[in-house]
Amino acid sequence: MKIRRIPGGVTAAKGFRASCCAAGIKYQGRTDMAMIAADVPCAVAGTFTSNLVKAAPVLWDMDVVYKQKQAQAVVVNAGIANAATGEAGMDLCRKSADCAAAELGIPASSVLLGSTGVIGPVIPLDRISCGITQLAASLSDTREAGTAASKAIMTTDTVNKEFAVAFDLPSADGSGTVTVHLGGMSKGSGMIHPNMCTMLGYITTDCAIDQSLLQHALSAVVKDTFNMITVDGDTSTNDTLLVLSSALAGNAPILEADESYSLFRDALYSVCRDLAVTMAGDGEGATHLIEMRVCNADTKENAQALARSVAGSSLVKAMVFGKDANCGRILCALGYAGPYFDPAVIELYMNGESDTICFYKDGRVQEFDEDRALKVMSEHDVRFTADMKMGTCEATAWGCDLTYDYVKINGDYRS
Amino acid sequence: MKIRRIPGGVTAAKGFRASCCAAGIKYQGRTDMAMIAADVPCAVAGTFTSNLVKAAPVLWDMDVVYKQKQAQAVVVNAGIANAATGEAGMDLCRKSADCAAAELGIPASSVLLGSTGVIGPVIPLDRISCGITQLAASLSDTREAGTAASKAIMTTDTVNKEFAVAFDLPSADGSGTVTVHLGGMSKGSGMIHPNMCTMLGYITTDCAIDQSLLQHALSAVVKDTFNMITVDGDTSTNDTLLVLSSALAGNAPILEADESYSLFRDALYSVCRDLAVTMAGDGEGATHLIEMRVCNADTKENAQALARSVAGSSLVKAMVFGKDANCGRILCALGYAGPYFDPAVIELYMNGESDTICFYKDGRVQEFDEDRALKVMSEHDVRFTADMKMGTCEATAWGCDLTYDYVKINGDYRS
Repeated sequence: MKIRRIPGGVTAAKGFRASCCAAGIKYQGRTDMAMIAADVPCAVAGTFTSNLVKAAPVLWDMDVVYKQKQAQAVVVNAGIANAATGEAGMDLCRKSADCAAAELGIPASSVLLGSTGVIGPVIPLDRISCGITQLAASLSDTREAGTAASKAIMTTDTVNKEFAVAFDLPSADGSGTVTVHLGGMSKGSGMIHPNMCTMLGYITTDCAIDQSLLQHALSAVVKDTFNMITVDGDTSTNDTLLVLSSALAGNAPILEADESYSLFRDALYSVCRDLAVTMAGDGEGATHLIEMRVCNADTKENAQALARSVAGSSLVKAMVFGKDANCGRILCALGYAGPYFDPAVIELYMNGESDTICFYKDGRVQEFDEDRALKVMSEHDVRFTADMKMGTCEATAWGCDLTYDYVKINGDYRS
Repeated sequence: MKIRRIPGGVTAAKGFRASCCAAGIKYQGRTDMAMIAADVPCAVAGTFTSNLVKAAPVLWDMDVVYKQKQAQAVVVNAGIANAATGEAGMDLCRKSADCAAAELGIPASSVLLGSTGVIGPVIPLDRISCGITQLAASLSDTREAGTAASKAIMTTDTVNKEFAVAFDLPSADGSGTVTVHLGGMSKGSGMIHPNMCTMLGYITTDCAIDQSLLQHALSAVVKDTFNMITVDGDTSTNDTLLVLSSALAGNAPILEADESYSLFRDALYSVCRDLAVTMAGDGEGATHLIEMRVCNADTKENAQALARSVAGSSLVKAMVFGKDANCGRILCALGYAGPYFDPAVIELYMNGESDTICFYKDGRVQEFDEDRALKVMSEHDVRFTADMKMGTCEATAWGCDLTYDYVKINGDYRS
C-alpha cells in the first residue's frame, strides 16, 4: 500500500502545532477557537466559496493565498461567520491577524483566518484577542492537540472530522526514501453544496512541493471530493479549504508533474475524500449517507452533474430517510440534471452490502422484491449506481437524507 | 376594472363541460379522474416539463399540441404518473385516447392526456377505460362540475385550485363588445420547481384567438407565473400546462398582437398567477407562502434568477418555518444565484402587512427589533424584497417553508 492511513489530523505532519480554547464567542461551555501554527513559513494553496457574497475572512485569506502564496498560521472561530459585516468585519480580520502575528512573532500577512456560524453579527474583538493569546500559549504538536482543534471548529457537526496519511518519496539527499505526512481537519454540516470546497477545511503536509503544484493538486482534487458533496444546496459565504506545506519531511522537492507529484496528489485526494464523505454523512440531521455513482457517461463533467443532481434531490433525500424505494425519483433527478442521455437505454441500481437490485432498465421501472429493497435502504450508507451506456467516464457524489431534524436545526439556528 | 374575477374554473368559458369519477386507480374513497370536453374543436397551446425524462402522457400531448394544434378533450388521472413505463405507457395513452374518442365521437388525435402520481407503475387499462366511460356520461357545464374536476386531480394538495376571469372585447359583428371568459384549474404540491409549468394545469377560454398567438401568450405568461414558483427544486417528469380555446364568445378573432391580445394575455396572466401562487402556498407540508421580490435589477432574467434562488433555498425555507429572522441566509442565497451584484450597495427588506424592516444595507446586516421581525415572520404570507440598485427590472418568485410535514409526506409517499 503506497498511501497508508495513519491516526491524527493537522499535527500529523512535521513542523505543525495546534491548539484550541473556549473564547465564548457565541457558544458557552465548549471550545470555539482553534489555531494551527507552523515552525517555518509554509507554501500555501487554497480554494474559496464561489458565492458572490464572501465573508471577511474569505477575502482576507484570498489575499494571502493569491498574493503572498505563503503563510505560517491559521486562526479559526466557530459561532459567528463574520459575513455581511462590511468594513467592521475587515477591520476585525486585520486586528485578529495583528494580534496572532504579535503572539507568534511572524508577519500579519502570514496569518490565515476562518470563521463559521451565523451571518450578520460582528465578533467582539476582545474575545478574539483574548482567545488568540490563549491559543498561542497552548500550541502542541501532539495528535491530541490536532484532534482538540478539529472539535473546536464544529458548529452543528455531530462528529469531528480528521484524517491523515503517510507515504514515501525519494529523499532530498538521494540516499533512499523518506516518509511524508499529510493530514487535515474540516467542519461542515449544513449550508453545504458543491461549488468550491463548501466548508472549512485545513490540511497540513511536510512534503516539499512547489507552491504552484500544490495549488494545482488542490484545485484538481477539490473537484472530485469537496465539490461532490451536498447537504442542502446552499453554497455558504465562508467556504474555505487551505493546505499548508512545511517542507520539513526531507523529500526531494516536487518541482514538476512527475511520479512523486502523482503520489502526493493521490494522498491529498485520499484525505480530502475522507473528510468530504464524512461531512456528507454528518449533514444536519442526517441518518443516512447517500452515495450516487454515475458510470459510463460521455464526459466527466456530465457524470458529475448527473451524480450531484441525484445526491441533492429533496425527494431522493426524503425517500432515503423513509427507507422507501420510490426509485422513479432517481430517474427524475437525472432527467432534470442537464446533460443529455437516453432514458430508454440507461440502467439504474441500488447497491447493498451484499445485494444489488436493478430497479430501472429498458425504459421502465422494474419490479423488485420490496423486502430486499428495504434491506438495502436500511443500511447506513445507501448507494445507487446509474449506468449511462454512453462512454467511459464516471463520478460519485455524496449527500445525506432529509430528516425532521434538518428542519428543526435550521428552523431555529440562531437561538 | 377591465379584467374581472368571476367564480368557477374550467367550465366558466362557453362550450366547455367537465366531469370526474372515482376510478380506483390508486386512491380509494375519492375521485381520481377528470375530463374536460369542448362542444367544438379548440385551438390548443401548451408548455411541458423540461425534464429529459418525460412521462408517456407528456409525449402524447406534445405530439397533439405541436402537430395537430387543436384538441377537443382532456382526460386526467391522479395516483399514478405513467412515467418511466416505456412502450407499455405509450400503449396505454393510445388506448385511453381511443376510448375517449369513441365515447365522445371525436378523433383520438383530439384527446389530450394527463397523469400525476407515483413514477414507475403502469395504470391498469380496465380502470382507465371504465373511468372514461363514466366521465363521458357525466359531463356538465355547471360551475360545480368544474370544481369537482379540480378536486379529482389532486394528489398531496390540501386545497383544490381554480380561478376564472371575464373581460370585454370588440364583438365579431362590430356592433359593440362581448364578454369573454377564461378559467383554469391546476394541481401541484410537491416535485415543483420552475422549469416549464411544474404541475398539471388546464385552462379554457371562449376567446377567439389565433393558435400561434395563443401559444405565444402562454409561453410569455408561464415565465412570470408557473416558472417562478418552487417547492422542492425537483422538476417533475409530468409537468403539463394546456390552454384550449373554443372561440365561442363571439369576439372579433384576435389575429395580431394588438390591444385585444394584450388584454387576453393579461387575463391569462391573472389566472396563471393565481393558480401558481396558490400552488406555492399549498406546497407539501407548507405553513407559509414565501414571496421574494427583486427590484431594480439590471435584467429581467437576472431578477428572476435572484428571486428564485431565495425562494428555493432550503435554509431560507427552514428559517421561515421557524419564524426565525436569520436574514443573512437571504443574502447568501442571492450570492450563489449566479448574476453579478454589489453586496456593498444592495438593500434587503422584510415586508409585513403594516410594517417594513430593512435588515441589510451598506454591506452589513442591520440591527432590528426582534419583536417587530417576529410579527412579520408570523404572517402566513412572508414577503422579502431585494433592491439591487442596478437598473429597472424586477421579478417575483413564490415558494413555501420547509416543514416536518414535507419530510413526512415525502419519506413515505408510495404507501
